[in-house]
Amino acid sequence: MDSVEEIGGYRPWSEVTPDAARRLLVAAVEAFAERGYHATTTRDIAGRAGMSPAALYIHYKTKEELLHRISRIGHDKALEILDTAASGPGSAAERLDAAVRSFVRWHAAHHTTARVVQYELDALAPEHRSDIVALRRQSDAAIRRILADGVAAGEFFVPDVPGTTLAVLSLCIDVARWFSADGRRTPDEVGALYAGLVLRMVGAGPGEAGGASQD
Amino acid sequence: MDSVEEIGGYRPWSEVTPDAARRLLVAAVEAFAERGYHATTTRDIAGRAGMSPAALYIHYKTKEELLHRISRIGHDKALEILDTAASGPGSAAERLDAAVRSFVRWHAAHHTTARVVQYELDALAPEHRSDIVALRRQSDAAIRRILADGVAAGEFFVPDVPGTTLAVLSLCIDVARWFSADGRRTPDEVGALYAGLVLRMVGAGPGEAGGASQD
Repeated sequence: MDSVEEIGGYRPWSEVTPDAARRLLVAAVEAFAERGYHATTTRDIAGRAGMSPAALYIHYKTKEELLHRISRIGHDKALEILDTAASGPGSAAERLDAAVRSFVRWHAAHHTTARVVQYELDALAPEHRSDIVALRRQSDAAIRRILADGVAAGEFFVPDVPGTTLAVLSLCIDVARWFSADGRRTPDEVGALYAGLVLRMVGAGPGEAGGASQD
Repeated sequence: MDSVEEIGGYRPWSEVTPDAARRLLVAAVEAFAERGYHATTTRDIAGRAGMSPAALYIHYKTKEELLHRISRIGHDKALEILDTAASGPGSAAERLDAAVRSFVRWHAAHHTTARVVQYELDALAPEHRSDIVALRRQSDAAIRRILADGVAAGEFFVPDVPGTTLAVLSLCIDVARWFSADGRRTPDEVGALYAGLVLRMVGAGPGEAGGASQD
């Protein structure tokens, strides 16, 4: 679990208590990622957590409640990462660099969770889905704000701010699909590569006006 | 099915004959996209195609054979798109523009198929998986060739060609996740936006040396 420790002391699911509820959530993430939400039963999840189905129902009324909890925690974390970067000190290029690095690192280090969070949105109940869609709008707004600031300050050249916001988030999110812990690049290395590419995308890359430092 | 017609006369699954085999494949794509591969039974697929499970077995021995056929056709098409662009006339910037536009258009217009093709790789049998991995390596090589040509010609500034190849393909592939036919942008519009962003990523965007025309 090395990669997990890299994310600035973030311990996944530590917000979930008691321990039995946390173990069930971890089991659900693994089962959903492996077989998909619809192919997973609450019995499978309880079994993975070494518990009985009856013990599961003490903590979660339905399988969908588990998915919503996972999705909510994942989206809260994503928004926290992006908001921290968007509200941080420094130029727009520095804030965009920080946002992309940390968002990519999270999707690489927590790729199993991120896949469930990103690919099972359609399985959420309507009221839970709107709750998650609202969080996604806020994440979108955080990146959009950095881009708009950069354009206003003359640091960025971005003809289509909403479209570029979408592309930046999409590029980072898809890291969860292809990233493999035994691949050639660490989450930090992918973060650094992507920050450089995104800065170039907005006309603020190395060798251009307003370029942030690339180390 | 408007969006399907946009892709230069490409009629999806027309290569699959007889008609019953084609209908089963279309039903399998829909079922896999909706519920996931593992939650879908051959009975579900036959039912969607208005056929009996026995009629399905005439054409496909297993559910995995259906997935492999879908994956193979999707990957063949992706490689054809990228190879056509990579081997086309014009500068590296023009070829990269063409590759991104057509690859994005395909992932947008055929987003349901593309999701199955991209997200169910782990469900393939080992020998089928290696067959598909080989096609993916060739797609990767097509983009890598354009980037290397652009660097050699002094058109592109790309410090990390393999990493940038990965990012360009990833950006295009993730269109399948977020694209919606009732969204604000058409497949053509997303293709044009992304071609511009990718050209900037490689230092050949509008206003920079070697920039391709953006219309």
